[in-house]
Amino acid sequence: MSILVVGSLALDSVETPFGKVDNVLGGSAVYFSVAASFFTKVHLVGVIGKDFPETHLQFLEQRGIDLQGLKQEEGKTFRWCGKYGYDLNEAHTLTTELNVFERFDPTIPLTYRNLKYIFLANIDPELQLRVLKQVNRPQVVALDTMDFWIENKLTQLKETLKLVDILIINEAEARELTQEYNLVKAARLILEQGPKTLIIKQGTYGALMFTNSSIFSAPAYPLEVTLDPTGAGDSFAGGFMGHLARSGKLNDEVIRQAIIFGSVMASFCVEQFSIERFQSLTYQEIINRFNEFLNLTCFPTV
Amino acid sequence: MSILVVGSLALDSVETPFGKVDNVLGGSAVYFSVAASFFTKVHLVGVIGKDFPETHLQFLEQRGIDLQGLKQEEGKTFRWCGKYGYDLNEAHTLTTELNVFERFDPTIPLTYRNLKYIFLANIDPELQLRVLKQVNRPQVVALDTMDFWIENKLTQLKETLKLVDILIINEAEARELTQEYNLVKAARLILEQGPKTLIIKQGTYGALMFTNSSIFSAPAYPLEVTLDPTGAGDSFAGGFMGHLARSGKLNDEVIRQAIIFGSVMASFCVEQFSIERFQSLTYQEIINRFNEFLNLTCFPTV
Repeated sequence: MSILVVGSLALDSVETPFGKVDNVLGGSAVYFSVAASFFTKVHLVGVIGKDFPETHLQFLEQRGIDLQGLKQEEGKTFRWCGKYGYDLNEAHTLTTELNVFERFDPTIPLTYRNLKYIFLANIDPELQLRVLKQVNRPQVVALDTMDFWIENKLTQLKETLKLVDILIINEAEARELTQEYNLVKAARLILEQGPKTLIIKQGTYGALMFTNSSIFSAPAYPLEVTLDPTGAGDSFAGGFMGHLARSGKLNDEVIRQAIIFGSVMASFCVEQFSIERFQSLTYQEIINRFNEFLNLTCFPTV
Repeated sequence: MSILVVGSLALDSVETPFGKVDNVLGGSAVYFSVAASFFTKVHLVGVIGKDFPETHLQFLEQRGIDLQGLKQEEGKTFRWCGKYGYDLNEAHTLTTELNVFERFDPTIPLTYRNLKYIFLANIDPELQLRVLKQVNRPQVVALDTMDFWIENKLTQLKETLKLVDILIINEAEARELTQEYNLVKAARLILEQGPKTLIIKQGTYGALMFTNSSIFSAPAYPLEVTLDPTGAGDSFAGGFMGHLARSGKLNDEVIRQAIIFGSVMASFCVEQFSIERFQSLTYQEIINRFNEFLNLTCFPTV
């Protein structure tokens, strides 16, 4: 099965204790698509400005990503400028220029309307809802969001959540959304609002998955070199949805595997700046790291 | 095999968002002993003042803990007063009164000197070293420490570490000890200083284990109710050493199981204030929770 993703394409400027890059390829839909493209076909809906480098488009096409739904408009591409300290779990946004992304109103091409796997990357929940109104009975809808929408569009976000199967957010967002500090209680509250599966990302600590009948804890891969955490969450979502869509199933076992594949893709993402690591990555490396997660977590019964 | 533990016995006053207790049973050697006592025999070396309630001694004896090495001296028992916010990973010390603990100079009873499993709870590294000089070729020495000793007695701590098999510290301590933020690199540096196994506790996120040939990641048990995190680290060490000593083995598989038992005991510890949860705990509950850790972490191969 292939995946429809709706989200941002950006030119990022990022500084970490390990280096600095300017105007590199970024954006939630980019990281998601590139990560998912190692597993299945991805169809991308988004918007770029006239300044978006042709080489980036070529790279996305080389990865087999379908750009039929990508609009190029007058103006500049969305730009994000951020900084990280040694605690790579916390991004400090320096500037955000929405540019063409400010007027983004996703139109889903007719040929995409029967796609069964949909990832709504972090955009205005009203737009996420508008996307869902354009598609025909998808099988799996996953959604990401952020503190800004929880604080400013809570009603619309909650409306959208009713139509979502899998919510993928970080722990601060889970707490803010529910006004509950304890993650197990927060998860229970979220599972009452629509999503049947909740994934709580915990940065360098891994991820937790909650359903009404199961809890799964996945570690992050212990890396000796982490240059830039930008895009880790979207790469996680890409690996996760990529495995789900490729398998065509949606049971506890496949979801657990998908979370590990998500963690694998996030771990590769942060090894270099921007999407650089994905340019040389092979599927065999992905499988090898998946197997390392088995070694990392296994212990004998008593 | 039985265990020798050297550390503090205290009367704690603790406030968390979920309640407040005054002068309750605490101290590293207490939490350790009580947790380990579910697995094997524990011999405790420590000091208390004349104000130490008889009921606490009775409780420790009921748990089968040997108090032959416990000294009662003129003066007051060590007191710690602390507070936690919603982030239970961070303790705020309000006051510390060392009292009789200030002159603590552990003498290991002759009958303990051939004990093969030793846990040196968080005390002055000079005293930890003095303990090791009194015992005969132990099989497994595990040690805990804290930022205060890293900052004030680094030379003595490093001297002691050379004789230690297993170092159990939290992630901030691992970073401070090595001046290295990345935990994988920090672990490598620590493994060059003596310990063959390093366990890095990560509070509500679980624990990481490093040896020269293996990395293991254990989650924390996802609890809906956490009243008081005091003693979680020592309860972890108690479950960990308890399982090691009971099994009598020291290989990668047993160490991994021991880390899960440590996590199990830490999770029970924080469910109530002080050592309260251990008063009603059964071995069957421990095994049940161990098995829940299997469900929490398992995923199918691909």
